[in-house]
Amino acid sequence: MNEHFSERIKQVPPSFLRKIFDIIENDDIISFAAGLPNPALFPVEAFKKAALTTLEESPETALQYGTTSGIPELRSIIAESYKKKDGIDISPDQVLITNGSQQGLDLLGKVLINKGDVIATENPTYLAAIQAFSMYEPQFVGIHLGINGMDITNLEKVLEEHNPKIVYTIPNFQNPTGITYSDDVRSQIANIVSKKDILLIEDDPYGEIRFEGTRCKPFAAHTEEAILLGSFSKIIAPGLRLGWIIARDKELYNELTIAKQATDLHTSTFTQHVVYRYYRDNDTQAHVNTIAVQYKNQKDAMITALEKHLGDSVSYTNPEGGMFIWATCKEKIDTAKLFPLAIKEGVAFVPGESFFASNAAKNTMRLNFTNSTPEQIDEGMQRLARALKLYSK
Amino acid sequence: MNEHFSERIKQVPPSFLRKIFDIIENDDIISFAAGLPNPALFPVEAFKKAALTTLEESPETALQYGTTSGIPELRSIIAESYKKKDGIDISPDQVLITNGSQQGLDLLGKVLINKGDVIATENPTYLAAIQAFSMYEPQFVGIHLGINGMDITNLEKVLEEHNPKIVYTIPNFQNPTGITYSDDVRSQIANIVSKKDILLIEDDPYGEIRFEGTRCKPFAAHTEEAILLGSFSKIIAPGLRLGWIIARDKELYNELTIAKQATDLHTSTFTQHVVYRYYRDNDTQAHVNTIAVQYKNQKDAMITALEKHLGDSVSYTNPEGGMFIWATCKEKIDTAKLFPLAIKEGVAFVPGESFFASNAAKNTMRLNFTNSTPEQIDEGMQRLARALKLYSK
Repeated sequence: MNEHFSERIKQVPPSFLRKIFDIIENDDIISFAAGLPNPALFPVEAFKKAALTTLEESPETALQYGTTSGIPELRSIIAESYKKKDGIDISPDQVLITNGSQQGLDLLGKVLINKGDVIATENPTYLAAIQAFSMYEPQFVGIHLGINGMDITNLEKVLEEHNPKIVYTIPNFQNPTGITYSDDVRSQIANIVSKKDILLIEDDPYGEIRFEGTRCKPFAAHTEEAILLGSFSKIIAPGLRLGWIIARDKELYNELTIAKQATDLHTSTFTQHVVYRYYRDNDTQAHVNTIAVQYKNQKDAMITALEKHLGDSVSYTNPEGGMFIWATCKEKIDTAKLFPLAIKEGVAFVPGESFFASNAAKNTMRLNFTNSTPEQIDEGMQRLARALKLYSK
Repeated sequence: MNEHFSERIKQVPPSFLRKIFDIIENDDIISFAAGLPNPALFPVEAFKKAALTTLEESPETALQYGTTSGIPELRSIIAESYKKKDGIDISPDQVLITNGSQQGLDLLGKVLINKGDVIATENPTYLAAIQAFSMYEPQFVGIHLGINGMDITNLEKVLEEHNPKIVYTIPNFQNPTGITYSDDVRSQIANIVSKKDILLIEDDPYGEIRFEGTRCKPFAAHTEEAILLGSFSKIIAPGLRLGWIIARDKELYNELTIAKQATDLHTSTFTQHVVYRYYRDNDTQAHVNTIAVQYKNQKDAMITALEKHLGDSVSYTNPEGGMFIWATCKEKIDTAKLFPLAIKEGVAFVPGESFFASNAAKNTMRLNFTNSTPEQIDEGMQRLARALKLYSK
């Protein structure tokens, strides 16, 4: 069968999480590996009502084929939310509903990437974005990431040397590092890419989950040309697979719609209708605030535990939102080799290596804090400290 | 923006239905154009219970991220159904859940098609399959379609001359023609492609909706190598966007799973859980039988109306299941030019031209019978007869 496979599928890097899935499913393991939202915060009762209301109010529409762009009611809610939060004028006709923001990446790849095109990404970046884009056989070039976003000098150098078609960013509570771009860095980058006619993709699944500091406006507020991806996965539930693309260029929007149609006709009208009614009938902002408060507790617990048990051996980011802390070991440690020792001690993380497009910092790791209790977090960090000691022996 | 678009997106043919969507939405039009299931037959009450049960029994699993292959419970139901209906041994590990069978086409394209690879299709064939595959820039070659399936002589000639990598078929109640492959033709084709190591894709969204004659076994019963696509769209509701791929080759299954993960991580766990419970708690075969009885009434009404109002000017297929009749005008008529006249008279269909990979028979049209009442069908055919008279003037 092998000989039948396409060149493109051979380009896709394997997912580390997929490989370790069975290991971290074990109940004896405290896992900081996967990026799972806290299921205790899913709005189950409100969602149940929304599902019932949907099947009472409009069963025939909610279960029938729908338009490729998505149902107008949901697109309006998304468009209005940007008006309210960021003062950006988005029309519902610029919103395309996708199966999570992951599908946004696939559709953008389909419409924009020719084999060999250069994509500049943060280094490190979201592994599944690399996977989605890889299907279309681009070249990746990484840009240094600082505590306030992409290093502007390095970005300019990369643009000069590699002439990328696309710059891909995760400006809020970045996956994997947890860092957030400052307003100043956003404005500088928006300026630079606009002048050069480079496409800017801003992937923002975590932006709503801010528990400290002040919301920064998206790139889309700085430049009309930014393509913005959003998701309901972190503010309602990921099992719905509901996200969106904001594309204000009409031609681009049309091509994305054609790609979506060819890919799967449209996203489930049923889940779209349920989420529309969930928004219509509930105080959804209050729910998001509840998530943020809970995640802050979990983040604080992880920072405390890191300081207490690993303060001497690792440095770490302290995110203002989202789901991840990025830890860097002080000594010359390869976290991919630390991983099996950590599993033996009963704790899991994602070795940082897998997130780099190039020049991997092997002494890094991604730690998820949203899916463990403060007690588990403290115990997990003690286990990690033991694994580090074993490693250094 | 145009200069940024990929070569691949330029290959995708436009959808006729998409272009005429606004026209046929008009209440004054009787539409035989779209392929919509009859929404009056959606199992709304049973589905409502299944949604509630899901959110009571396992809200945290049903709303959380899930495995890329799909939930095991649903994959088991699908695997067992083939055992029961066709005596084929399918393991749940050979079932990959997709967003409708349309996504199955996209994933197969991703994994199998290199630019320039040849795909042999029925001529005419399902337009959206051409669209899905086109993203991966293959060449298409059409094979004559008779009343019992692909013309074997023509198939052999095409295999000899064009050496295709894939043969794509819709063996039951084909879209657009409504024809069904005989057991004999299935067995011959399975033999031919197995010997030549050609991949056979059998797309079977309609197979369950048989209202006359005897079920034929799928290609997958004739050869291990057939890749089988199925869907819940026609037996429950299309708005769920739930389908599946059966791939018994383990390497192929793994590559499809990697492609699915890169594309959208996984299909909605929520809709999967609801459909699993719908199957667990209901007599789903009884429901499918109800659909078949109703569709037979609608099909019979359309055959009667065709005979009565258009018997002199068109010939037509008489399908044993599915949703479509294929009509061929006796005179030299271009149905694309007939279309605006038909709209003026208040009736819509899909001109046959759009379904052909090559050598389009311009005097053909696809007629959907599942979304109109017998009265509408009779009235629609009178309108079509008037349009034909206008055309011939």
